[in-house]
Amino acid sequence: MPEPSPHTHACTVRVRYAETDQMGVVYYANYFVWMEIARVEYCRSVGFHYKDMELEDGVLLAVAESHCRYVSPAHFDEEIRIITSVPDVNRRFVSFDYEMTCKGRRVAIGQTRHVFLKRDPENGLRPVRLPDKYAALFGIGD
Amino acid sequence: MPEPSPHTHACTVRVRYAETDQMGVVYYANYFVWMEIARVEYCRSVGFHYKDMELEDGVLLAVAESHCRYVSPAHFDEEIRIITSVPDVNRRFVSFDYEMTCKGRRVAIGQTRHVFLKRDPENGLRPVRLPDKYAALFGIGD
Amino acid sequence: MPEPSPHTHACTVRVRYAETDQMGVVYYANYFVWMEIARVEYCRSVGFHYKDMELEDGVLLAVAESHCRYVSPAHFDEEIRIITSVPDVNRRFVSFDYEMTCKGRRVAIGQTRHVFLKRDPENGLRPVRLPDKYAALFGIGD
Amino acid sequence: MPEPSPHTHACTVRVRYAETDQMGVVYYANYFVWMEIARVEYCRSVGFHYKDMELEDGVLLAVAESHCRYVSPAHFDEEIRIITSVPDVNRRFVSFDYEMTCKGRRVAIGQTRHVFLKRDPENGLRPVRLPDKYAALFGIGD
Repeated sequence: MPEPSPHTHACTVRVRYAETDQMGVVYYANYFVWMEIARVEYCRSVGFHYKDMELEDGVLLAVAESHCRYVSPAHFDEEIRIITSVPDVNRRFVSFDYEMTCKGRRVAIGQTRHVFLKRDPENGLRPVRLPDKYAALFGIGD
Repeated sequence: MPEPSPHTHACTVRVRYAETDQMGVVYYANYFVWMEIARVEYCRSVGFHYKDMELEDGVLLAVAESHCRYVSPAHFDEEIRIITSVPDVNRRFVSFDYEMTCKGRRVAIGQTRHVFLKRDPENGLRPVRLPDKYAALFGIGD
Repeated sequence: MPEPSPHTHACTVRVRYAETDQMGVVYYANYFVWMEIARVEYCRSVGFHYKDMELEDGVLLAVAESHCRYVSPAHFDEEIRIITSVPDVNRRFVSFDYEMTCKGRRVAIGQTRHVFLKRDPENGLRPVRLPDKYAALFGIGD
Repeated sequence: MPEPSPHTHACTVRVRYAETDQMGVVYYANYFVWMEIARVEYCRSVGFHYKDMELEDGVLLAVAESHCRYVSPAHFDEEIRIITSVPDVNRRFVSFDYEMTCKGRRVAIGQTRHVFLKRDPENGLRPVRLPDKYAALFGIGD
């Protein structure tokens, strides 16, 4: 029976000037860009490159749902630490949880839920079962 | 007793090339930028300019929470229609709902929840009650 | 002998909150996004959809060079008018000029230079001569 | 007599998925975001935090002009090395040069030119002479 991986991964992003808005803090959509970075680093930490999954196996991780709760604003040049975990994964879907902090202060928490897709010959995208080699890395058995 | 405004507003955005990613569809964080545009247009439709609320009254609409469910991908150059409504508003918070469609096809639905903030003399941000003139426009009595 | 088209096209963008930074004005990279919008609208105005050139003919307009001179800052919610022209075009390259104003005040001027590319079977990109149907629309003879 | 600083600084950015577009390469405006990162890191390397110059001294580095020549496309997940130098600086202006490479392959070269600004009481921005402490760090004498 598939079980969520207990693995977590931490990475860091430094706030770019481009990511701020005239309120003087990070614009709210940019937290989702950070989640993407954290997701890619999470994949690297369990043993594969997200890029290769797309290029070599044609499997895409399409976002089905995203959520962010903003706790305390992030500012230009701050280092944001993102702890990523996978609370739920099977052959069709994977969810990620993200906790963003700055020097111990909680900045935001986020969640994304994804479906695995593959390009079909007509260049459309259709759902696909996650291939074995990636499933194993996410800790999914049969 | 405050009641949600039954008002809805529709606006349109055309997908920019910059908003696509290498999957060939709109990058998931950009839907939140569209929600911001729809929010600003909603405010204009009920009678005030969001810009003036910031500049003249120093009241900021900070995002406390955001959510998006992606139903069908949006593509470059498509026109996305966004219908915005306010399911919940009081002197401290306001929520917006967004329905994004393209030629009748549902693209995504989103929600954002905001808190009203004001700059204090030390340039920090603290919660503030929404001033009367804006409250009236959102359909809030006392 | 190919001659630059005397055609110009005007379009308008409204400044998004997302496009501002903590300086309180539009972040400098975003002017290039506006130039892209203006370019796409220019193409529409001469008779083709940039999207179709990519999708149907596989011809891409890759940027070889870009330049912007910032004259006066643009602010949130302002309407920016962009006048686009093509000072130089042949079968291999095309240049665009952009003049950005806000209520008659000059905001910025920009230039981009592009090369026509095509995907080859190995998914690489190689230079290509602009097909006749598009060349005609840009006012290029033989 | 002021002389350009011979100092150069190297930093690295990893290409984000968000930075790609449907052409499968990095969207052209994003190179300017990387230049901003490189600029901020350059300042750190000569001994000050750009953030502090804004916050403590109210001096802003506004972009007057920007240019980029795209040599070879950058792709998702690649590490881009940016070498930054200051070819020209005085009390009123500073220019930066950027060379972007990926594993020795030249990706792009860029330039930006900036003017020093200060907020005046009415919240406008006006040109200002660079204060001594920063001038010294840029290698400007009197």
